[in-house]
Amino acid sequence: MPTRPAKMPLTKTAMRPYNFSAGPAVMPDAVLAQAAAEMLDWHGSGMGVMEMSHRGKEFGEIYAQAQADLRELLAVPEHFKLLFMQGGGLAENAIVPLNLSQGQTADFVVTGSWSQKSLAEARKYCTAHEAANTQAKGHTTLADPATWQLSDKPAYVHICSNETINGVEYHALPDLKALGCDAPLVVDFSSHVASRPVDWSRVGLAFGGAQKNLGPAGLTLVVVRDDLLDRTLAICPSAFSYRTVADNDSMFNTPPTYSIYIAGLVFKWLKEQGGIAAIEARNIAKAELLYNAIDSSGLFVIRVARDCRSRMNVPFYLRDESLNEAFLAGARERGLLQLKGHKSVGGMRASIYNAMPLEGVQALVNYMRDFEKTRA
Amino acid sequence: MPTRPAKMPLTKTAMRPYNFSAGPAVMPDAVLAQAAAEMLDWHGSGMGVMEMSHRGKEFGEIYAQAQADLRELLAVPEHFKLLFMQGGGLAENAIVPLNLSQGQTADFVVTGSWSQKSLAEARKYCTAHEAANTQAKGHTTLADPATWQLSDKPAYVHICSNETINGVEYHALPDLKALGCDAPLVVDFSSHVASRPVDWSRVGLAFGGAQKNLGPAGLTLVVVRDDLLDRTLAICPSAFSYRTVADNDSMFNTPPTYSIYIAGLVFKWLKEQGGIAAIEARNIAKAELLYNAIDSSGLFVIRVARDCRSRMNVPFYLRDESLNEAFLAGARERGLLQLKGHKSVGGMRASIYNAMPLEGVQALVNYMRDFEKTRA
Repeated sequence: MPTRPAKMPLTKTAMRPYNFSAGPAVMPDAVLAQAAAEMLDWHGSGMGVMEMSHRGKEFGEIYAQAQADLRELLAVPEHFKLLFMQGGGLAENAIVPLNLSQGQTADFVVTGSWSQKSLAEARKYCTAHEAANTQAKGHTTLADPATWQLSDKPAYVHICSNETINGVEYHALPDLKALGCDAPLVVDFSSHVASRPVDWSRVGLAFGGAQKNLGPAGLTLVVVRDDLLDRTLAICPSAFSYRTVADNDSMFNTPPTYSIYIAGLVFKWLKEQGGIAAIEARNIAKAELLYNAIDSSGLFVIRVARDCRSRMNVPFYLRDESLNEAFLAGARERGLLQLKGHKSVGGMRASIYNAMPLEGVQALVNYMRDFEKTRA
Repeated sequence: MPTRPAKMPLTKTAMRPYNFSAGPAVMPDAVLAQAAAEMLDWHGSGMGVMEMSHRGKEFGEIYAQAQADLRELLAVPEHFKLLFMQGGGLAENAIVPLNLSQGQTADFVVTGSWSQKSLAEARKYCTAHEAANTQAKGHTTLADPATWQLSDKPAYVHICSNETINGVEYHALPDLKALGCDAPLVVDFSSHVASRPVDWSRVGLAFGGAQKNLGPAGLTLVVVRDDLLDRTLAICPSAFSYRTVADNDSMFNTPPTYSIYIAGLVFKWLKEQGGIAAIEARNIAKAELLYNAIDSSGLFVIRVARDCRSRMNVPFYLRDESLNEAFLAGARERGLLQLKGHKSVGGMRASIYNAMPLEGVQALVNYMRDFEKTRA
């Protein structure tokens, strides 16, 4: 296994390659090291976190700290609940309309694979209205909110604020009130949660699977405004009723305790990095480094419009696609892993989540330049 | 933190106390140690398991091995699917009727807290008929199947084969065919899965949260007969449709990858113990040791009938309940943790799952004898 560049400190963890997986994705070395050290005995309790009753005082501390740290990091106002659920974004595609649609009309802005799936699943529970769709442009742009065809009184308006596969991101959340719509905005922020601040004044509910920026797959974060807790359809499973989950501090059913613990370590790590403002600045620097390198290259190309390029997921293509396999093989040799693009769009994709250091992006950029030179 | 008795080998992990939590529960030391060692680098991949794409070849190997080992251990016939889902038993209380009831009548045998909850949740989706209820005896017995008042043609018959809170266990699964009923038997085996063999000829579907005998909370095992995959109601969320989950190898939504990996390590450990027959023999020996000690005591008492005492969850009481706190405090001093009974039934409960060694039960029995002597 190749090591990181020699200028990196030669600690044990620094030997790890750079992992550009879209999710489950790279975790901070410090988080994994602490989890390993505490695996058999958490804080002298004699138990590993996996072995603790979710009702016990030890896990109670872990849960409360994770809630408090996440609320502080994301500056979530008191009139929102933080729910730890299960099933990921695809389950939320049903759980959101079960809880918010009241069987009426909900509006969907389709900007890629994930919002398309959300719309399709919602049809089971409500009239799902397509307010906009960027399919004609291959989901390489975002539809200007001024052009959305909103319903008269939608139960909510759904967007995916960062499309993991297509690589488009809302750099600011749309302001529904400015559009004359007082419906709650539902935001699928799975793949860029905690990468930047959130303007909660524009949000009714936000949800995200943990497996990109928060922790292990199997944990789902839902942030929901208090006034939206009591719209649940009778057919909603109790374990997925926001009211039930909120009233039971996410412990109506046994929560994914170990995943919550790991997410808590990630929150602690984020605070040590300087919080969300600092991590956003780092994410901007990482994204600029990579996009600039691609834009200035003759071999690599980006298809996404400049004004909505994702800072987390960077899909790119080799102009000569016959070189794809050689590019990937060379990357693996340099310790640059999981760069193959999603099968639905092909090409390459570099996911550069919070836990990807700038040095990892620099290593990728260096490799791309070297690869281009050898093919010139 | 007190250590195990001095006769135990003084390895690092042997310093851990004995943890009698009902779930999440004690894990094998060897499993936790391996997980810790592989946290930052699984098998030279340069990635921890948490960081791997669920679509990649590394996790594909982990998943396939876990499936194969579990099928071998539980001797699951080929005409059953093994599904790895999320949400635990309480979510399955909705997911089962969403998939199997077809909005008709389903029968429930209520033998404790968990089957009671299953019945209540099913009422959202079907006519839930109570075929028997042992409430009048405080759920300290099992209803003889010959006395069940089954419906004419139920969509299925639901039992909880081990009631975690009440401590009653079916030592053999009921034979619906012998009762003249050809409906599928649905078995909630959350708290004794993998503790003994399963007679699959009597089962249509079995489900269980992982957090007692299989691995971390957040993973749910569903074993379902192929002919039951196509009865799903249209309102069932896609992520919880057995057909959808089966057709996508449990990867319609991102599965709880790390929990599957840990469960896979538990399966490997179970095979090293000699498989399910060997673990059952050990579980019988552990249960006999504890029940015999209680039955022969003047201070402690069991309320559950002899013919249906759980081998996994042993609720017991002090005849003088004013001694409860002293008993628990003394237990903690000896490194015997989480013995307090469930709040709904009070008293004590020792959960002695697969990962609890005989030495742990012996340590508890020794303590109970010593405690009784000091109070004589």
